[in-house]
Amino acid sequence: MSWQGLLSAFKSIISFTMLAALMPSSAATTQSLPLPQLPKLSPEEEMLALQETLARYIKGMRETFIQDLSTSNDLLTEVSQFYAKRPSKLFRPRLIFLTALAVNASVGGREVLPHQVRLAEIVEMIHVVSLLHDDVIDESDTRRGDVSAPSKFGNKNSILAGDFVLGRAMSLIAALENFDAMREIAGVVTTLVEGEIIQAEDSSALGEKARAGQAADQWGSYMERMFLKTGSLFARALRSTAMLSGLPSDDERVDAVGQYGTELGLAFQIIDDALDFKETSVDSAGKPTGAVDLSLGLITAPVFYALEERPELGPYVSRKCSQPGDADEVVRIVRETSALPRTFALAAQHAEKAREALQVLPRTAARDALEGLTLKVLSRDK
Amino acid sequence: MSWQGLLSAFKSIISFTMLAALMPSSAATTQSLPLPQLPKLSPEEEMLALQETLARYIKGMRETFIQDLSTSNDLLTEVSQFYAKRPSKLFRPRLIFLTALAVNASVGGREVLPHQVRLAEIVEMIHVVSLLHDDVIDESDTRRGDVSAPSKFGNKNSILAGDFVLGRAMSLIAALENFDAMREIAGVVTTLVEGEIIQAEDSSALGEKARAGQAADQWGSYMERMFLKTGSLFARALRSTAMLSGLPSDDERVDAVGQYGTELGLAFQIIDDALDFKETSVDSAGKPTGAVDLSLGLITAPVFYALEERPELGPYVSRKCSQPGDADEVVRIVRETSALPRTFALAAQHAEKAREALQVLPRTAARDALEGLTLKVLSRDK
Repeated sequence: MSWQGLLSAFKSIISFTMLAALMPSSAATTQSLPLPQLPKLSPEEEMLALQETLARYIKGMRETFIQDLSTSNDLLTEVSQFYAKRPSKLFRPRLIFLTALAVNASVGGREVLPHQVRLAEIVEMIHVVSLLHDDVIDESDTRRGDVSAPSKFGNKNSILAGDFVLGRAMSLIAALENFDAMREIAGVVTTLVEGEIIQAEDSSALGEKARAGQAADQWGSYMERMFLKTGSLFARALRSTAMLSGLPSDDERVDAVGQYGTELGLAFQIIDDALDFKETSVDSAGKPTGAVDLSLGLITAPVFYALEERPELGPYVSRKCSQPGDADEVVRIVRETSALPRTFALAAQHAEKAREALQVLPRTAARDALEGLTLKVLSRDK
Repeated sequence: MSWQGLLSAFKSIISFTMLAALMPSSAATTQSLPLPQLPKLSPEEEMLALQETLARYIKGMRETFIQDLSTSNDLLTEVSQFYAKRPSKLFRPRLIFLTALAVNASVGGREVLPHQVRLAEIVEMIHVVSLLHDDVIDESDTRRGDVSAPSKFGNKNSILAGDFVLGRAMSLIAALENFDAMREIAGVVTTLVEGEIIQAEDSSALGEKARAGQAADQWGSYMERMFLKTGSLFARALRSTAMLSGLPSDDERVDAVGQYGTELGLAFQIIDDALDFKETSVDSAGKPTGAVDLSLGLITAPVFYALEERPELGPYVSRKCSQPGDADEVVRIVRETSALPRTFALAAQHAEKAREALQVLPRTAARDALEGLTLKVLSRDK
């Protein structure tokens, strides 16, 4: 079955109506539209207006974001802004703005509040810190085909700039003026680090466990890793967003967007692992990406499923694809099984839970867009 | 003039009465004393009671501190607690507790408040982060004669544990429940990093400037570095402490302890630089420590003063003590000049300003102890 065929099959089994692609394109509509005024606008007009609104917030946030990473020292400014200035989808800020619009509508608000814009900056800063420090840890010379910060500025400047950006995020958190929201978002960093450390431990434990036939024990650890790496970040960011609307921490809308964030993050990470097994997916060394995690000692969902159908995969897993030809063979075997459809189905289950969680919010273009994101996460191809 | 002679001479010119050593010894008095109740206790009795009080807070804080660095992951816990568990004077927490007692007394309080204890933890956490990351940056195998964290656990775990501890500090800041105090302390990290980066830049710029006869231009940069490295941390920590007493950010007592922190920090750093020129002061490679900063390209106060009297030092500075015998020669020349007395005098001026700043607070044993610390900083010999 071809990759696209697989994708189409799975889109058709997803139990909710497919929504149009919702993120604004870079060529934004030039038509000036009023803010949404129900019921005057059709759903399509609402969506166009939302795209404009979102594009405006993203543009403003990006400018402030880069500005907030500057200091009186030119070198420190340059390293801190290095990744921030690169083209980026700014997925996390978009998610926060849509959530802000969807939740604020439930209390009569029509705009993203200044503290919610600030929160989007904070979350993006924490993302930049992880890029700066990961590239030192992984000794990466490149990031997405361009030179990495440690390669250009050295490890010392990259570590220090990461600390600086985290310090700036701390200052922005301290200015949020909402104790619940501050506590919620401040807990993000420790969780992300726990995810990294658990990943490293799973990685070193794999060979042993696989040999002992305990690879399946790692399912729980896999899901925990997926949660700590993305689900928890999305959940905390969105709960914090809702609290900044003025909602108490135990409000059902806070729980709803937190649940949405958790499930969307899980779906996002699981799809990442499926995409590694695309026919054409190879890393910079030409190795199939499906074998990269395995060679690091990490079993992902597609391999778990494939192992159930083809026990002969075991030895490849145990030896972490260390022999010539192992990588290609693993990818070939995995693709022969129903592992990829099952992985998509798993991601789709989490996407569905994400969509369901949103139903406590009133129907708005922003909520529609958040629902649409769950499909967008499933249908992305890179 | 011997080192001790120099010290005595400078103690005698300090324009305030010398106070007894004030920090509690590890062998705390076993006598049970009541809390200070003016005017029943003599100043000596008050001081003994204060020592007991302080020892109690330090013990409690240290236990909570180590507990707060634990996580569900054993490895992450071990690396995060690695430096925290080592014996330490806990100078920063002591400074915060004394300031808390001195300021709280001005509003009728007799104890350190829970949020002020929490603040001491936060500041100590930020200190631990700087140790973890500095040892990666400097590729240090040892710290104070014992194995370093990167040497024992690797760079990856040390960087991640530093990020984790900083994340934990973020969470503690977010729980302080005082917006002014939170903002004040959250700004500490960016300032510390700016200090590190400026130091690195001064270091690489030195040879050039010294050759061009512009070494004196670096005085301003030196003082800025001293402020960013310690003065700013002390100032923000103590201002935050005072705000947690319930004082508004523009209260004169907040300014007073901030001023005290700045000046004490400057004195502390300047004395550090003088101590590097002790006769017996050598680094682990047997090199006089007075030449270590110079070989890194950093001119400190003693060298600035010595250059004024002995221009022949210039070439040693320009070439960063790179030739055999340079280090010993520089230390010999500096010691022949009045550079060390002048450096002590400079530190003493800042200590005096620190002491003066405290006079807006009511006289208490805690304020006496803070005044005593200014002398303790000048008289320490390592």
